[in-house]
Amino acid sequence: MLKEAIDHRPKNNYAYPYDDETLHIKLRTKKNDLERVTLIYGDPFDWTNERPNFYESSMEVAYQDDLYDYWFAAIKTVRRRTHYVFKLEDSSEDSPVIFSERGYFDSVPEDCPPCFFKVPFLNPIDVFNAPNWVKDTTWYQIFPERFANGDTSNDPEGALDWNSSPPSPTNFFGGDFQGVIDHLEYLQDLGINGIYFTPIFKAKSNHKYDTIDYFEIDPQFGDKEKFRELVTKCHERGIRVMLDAVFNHSGYYFEPFQDVLEHGENSKYKDWFHIHEFPIAYEPKPNYDTFAYEPKMPKLNTENSEVKQYLLDVATYWIEEFDIDGWRLDVANEIDHQFWREFRQAVKAVKPDVYILGEIWHDSMPWLQGDQFDAVMNYPFTEATLNFFARRTINAEQFKNQINQVLAAYPENVNEVAFNLLGSHDTARVLTQAGDDKRLVKLMYLFELTFIGTPCIYYGDEIGLTGDDDPGCRKCMPWDADEQDHELISFFQNLIRLRQEEPLLRGEGSFKFVKTEGNIVMYERLDQNQKIIVVINNQDEQVDFKLADAYQNAEYMLFEKPQDGALSLDPYGFSILKMARG
Amino acid sequence: MLKEAIDHRPKNNYAYPYDDETLHIKLRTKKNDLERVTLIYGDPFDWTNERPNFYESSMEVAYQDDLYDYWFAAIKTVRRRTHYVFKLEDSSEDSPVIFSERGYFDSVPEDCPPCFFKVPFLNPIDVFNAPNWVKDTTWYQIFPERFANGDTSNDPEGALDWNSSPPSPTNFFGGDFQGVIDHLEYLQDLGINGIYFTPIFKAKSNHKYDTIDYFEIDPQFGDKEKFRELVTKCHERGIRVMLDAVFNHSGYYFEPFQDVLEHGENSKYKDWFHIHEFPIAYEPKPNYDTFAYEPKMPKLNTENSEVKQYLLDVATYWIEEFDIDGWRLDVANEIDHQFWREFRQAVKAVKPDVYILGEIWHDSMPWLQGDQFDAVMNYPFTEATLNFFARRTINAEQFKNQINQVLAAYPENVNEVAFNLLGSHDTARVLTQAGDDKRLVKLMYLFELTFIGTPCIYYGDEIGLTGDDDPGCRKCMPWDADEQDHELISFFQNLIRLRQEEPLLRGEGSFKFVKTEGNIVMYERLDQNQKIIVVINNQDEQVDFKLADAYQNAEYMLFEKPQDGALSLDPYGFSILKMARG
Repeated sequence: MLKEAIDHRPKNNYAYPYDDETLHIKLRTKKNDLERVTLIYGDPFDWTNERPNFYESSMEVAYQDDLYDYWFAAIKTVRRRTHYVFKLEDSSEDSPVIFSERGYFDSVPEDCPPCFFKVPFLNPIDVFNAPNWVKDTTWYQIFPERFANGDTSNDPEGALDWNSSPPSPTNFFGGDFQGVIDHLEYLQDLGINGIYFTPIFKAKSNHKYDTIDYFEIDPQFGDKEKFRELVTKCHERGIRVMLDAVFNHSGYYFEPFQDVLEHGENSKYKDWFHIHEFPIAYEPKPNYDTFAYEPKMPKLNTENSEVKQYLLDVATYWIEEFDIDGWRLDVANEIDHQFWREFRQAVKAVKPDVYILGEIWHDSMPWLQGDQFDAVMNYPFTEATLNFFARRTINAEQFKNQINQVLAAYPENVNEVAFNLLGSHDTARVLTQAGDDKRLVKLMYLFELTFIGTPCIYYGDEIGLTGDDDPGCRKCMPWDADEQDHELISFFQNLIRLRQEEPLLRGEGSFKFVKTEGNIVMYERLDQNQKIIVVINNQDEQVDFKLADAYQNAEYMLFEKPQDGALSLDPYGFSILKMARG
Repeated sequence: MLKEAIDHRPKNNYAYPYDDETLHIKLRTKKNDLERVTLIYGDPFDWTNERPNFYESSMEVAYQDDLYDYWFAAIKTVRRRTHYVFKLEDSSEDSPVIFSERGYFDSVPEDCPPCFFKVPFLNPIDVFNAPNWVKDTTWYQIFPERFANGDTSNDPEGALDWNSSPPSPTNFFGGDFQGVIDHLEYLQDLGINGIYFTPIFKAKSNHKYDTIDYFEIDPQFGDKEKFRELVTKCHERGIRVMLDAVFNHSGYYFEPFQDVLEHGENSKYKDWFHIHEFPIAYEPKPNYDTFAYEPKMPKLNTENSEVKQYLLDVATYWIEEFDIDGWRLDVANEIDHQFWREFRQAVKAVKPDVYILGEIWHDSMPWLQGDQFDAVMNYPFTEATLNFFARRTINAEQFKNQINQVLAAYPENVNEVAFNLLGSHDTARVLTQAGDDKRLVKLMYLFELTFIGTPCIYYGDEIGLTGDDDPGCRKCMPWDADEQDHELISFFQNLIRLRQEEPLLRGEGSFKFVKTEGNIVMYERLDQNQKIIVVINNQDEQVDFKLADAYQNAEYMLFEKPQDGALSLDPYGFSILKMARG
């Protein structure tokens, strides 16, 4: 038994309330090291005949990565208080041993209450609790300048004809809200039911991440009435609307920053930013904090109470006045946690089921404890998926390890609403990353749309749009029928429809890899009663994939049909099956 | 290199801001497995000539326990943003390897920014920031019913003569505020400069943990004017005052609970508690949540906004009106985190340097992130110290491991203000636990008073008071000179004085074990310039303890003097030395 590998610490991802009465407990051990793990738990104050009462729950390996097994058990608490230890068993002589907060014992340390791990009391207000609708949502990300130009009268000066040249960091094509409204039927046909808009507030650039006025719509997109119409028409079609909150930094032309430029130390806004010295200078690096070292994006001082109030007013204004459904938080990791806690309280007070999504590219547990975000953009998922399908740098087993590592790093209720994406305005298009091989794009979106969490499609991926890193990935969406890949669109439609029809594929089903072999993966989404099985042949050769005995009763659902207990999978072929659990 | 043992996750104890410009980074590895660890870090946006700039800091093993080494480095951030990886070196062929958030690499993964660990931005408001005065405080815990009876006119009905019988769960002896005031000179002579009072508000029991009215002083202790006099006189002597906030549960006779008993479901207070069903019943277990299963202590519903406001009003009232300096939070772990966050904001708003101390007996990291408590009662420290000195169940090496495990589990700024105690009204007296061997009590308090953190003396330990578990540990303090151990008192006075005179022994010096051997421990408190060294001979035989070369210049400070580079230590003898760092 490799004790050094064993890890557990209550709260965070290892022990957390899943809902108001259920606790999830996880234990990390060395991969394939233990034969059996049993959770021994009870209420520390629940005694009978001067002896504490204990219950046992056998744990299962929920995830396995390259180094570790992650054992899992879900239990109901006894009067909401829980203390626990783990019984670890392998084939060695000293097995079983008891693992506790104070180390290892031969038997349950009944006479040492503080030795137990504890989730002292399950307080509902501390339960991570994202909006229910998120699990059921398939997102579509729109970069408004490039989705559709529905009203040329509001085109910015010098706007180019739609799709007449490649996107550059500075050019404009006139995309706007009317363009989105004009294509809502297209989006509904596609099957998506949530739109995430990159910034729409008054700004100077084409990407609008350099806000001038957080209370105004950028005139190139329309006005507030047009935005209200857009939200209303989305809602009529059952499509939710999420906006981008760029609160880490303002734009250079944000009035308070202009005031600081003009009045220096005498500006009443001087504490709205992080200015290291006056006068302000830009070289060699700006002498004030910025996004990266971009002088045009001065970092806002979110610890300042005026700034905080201003931004919270912005956050609630667009909910109260326009009924938006979510906020995506730009550069969320560089803003203080205190701000985000107050942000959550403010927005949930005006709309309890608003979705709070942080842009964080790395490990995000500190933001996902229930007091700050509902989800983060799941870039570690993105990386693993691109590595396996597009970049082809890892095999199926490594893919499994990487995905399982992401899942094991978070509570299950966090995984259920993770914002899974394959690309965005910040990354090269998936089709381009896949060397223009549309079959690989299909596999990636197949995986994303059948994975646990809430999937997002970057506008245009569904019609076969290509493009390198920014600005290449921000091309105009072509609307001529012959510039769109209709076979690809149907593929998306079929998959999204399946996801909407099958609760298992949404938040209801847990996720588990069943088998990996070379470049073939088989995984399932399951609940107590049934499972949906996906098999992906991620290689350029046909394969006859024999289904194990347990899967002989699986029924055809979509794509390749099983025959005689096997699947004949084309190169880059795939199949979705379904079966009842025995 | 045992990869399974290697652990790091930003925030929590492994990576945290120590102050507004310093980051502490720790890495856990298998004990004695690695030869060298180097932190490679930079600002993710700090590039020169299209290459990211990196800095290196070699790490040191700060702590070692039975299984692990904990490597440590303190760095200054580059413009407050930090990403980093670790270079791990041992004597194997594949050394060095780079350990990152996405696993292991042969070289620094410059082309994979998301692979780096990140402390994205050092926001001062998120820095754990306990009051400065706490490090300089030596606490004295008073159980007011038993410290001194200074005014017999307020004795409760049936009060017994002082110290005329053993304490029982229900008897009274009339201790009060006047008694404390009468002995402030004694306390000042002892050297303490903080008093922690167990509850003083109106309640039924002798321990007062069953509050009837949070806005009233229990009449057996005096009235508000007497309390104001007590606080004022303490402050005049430089003694701070901390009260006990029993917010997890009220007493049975708390008016709102009485109202619920009377009006049942129609009571306007029915949501102030967690009542599972009406009518209220006590058997077999109360059908409402309580402290443990004690029907006389109904748990308060701190998620209810009225309850929350009521308790926050209590918390600020005693600060604003009586200028108290700290709150000790009873059963703090069973109250929701959200409540404690609001509690912190409320009390710090009225007195920014008020001390918030939670009663938590187990791993407390979730409460010590800067948003909730300043410290917890350090019972894991208590256990390790009692195990080694009093119960004698572990040797010096195991003691070192247990103490280092506690230290490694928290940030350093948390360790500096930890509330270290050896006993309390909830545990048997140390002298009793030490089999009435006063020499062992000296060793334990010597360790506590020279350890990192803020030490507490339980009233009477300094005069040799004995007593078993509650109620035995709540004896009346004897004030007859011949009932007090004056030699023991001098010992405490000398040590406390030394602590007050030496910044190194307060919060300024870090803590490090130098050597353990059988039952002998040698440790030091140190900063850049000097160190204070303590050697303890925890065994019943004289020993000649040779000082290593590096310690030959150490000078005598207190207790045993070195001679010819060695210490001649009596059974249970000890010595404190001091030296400049080379």
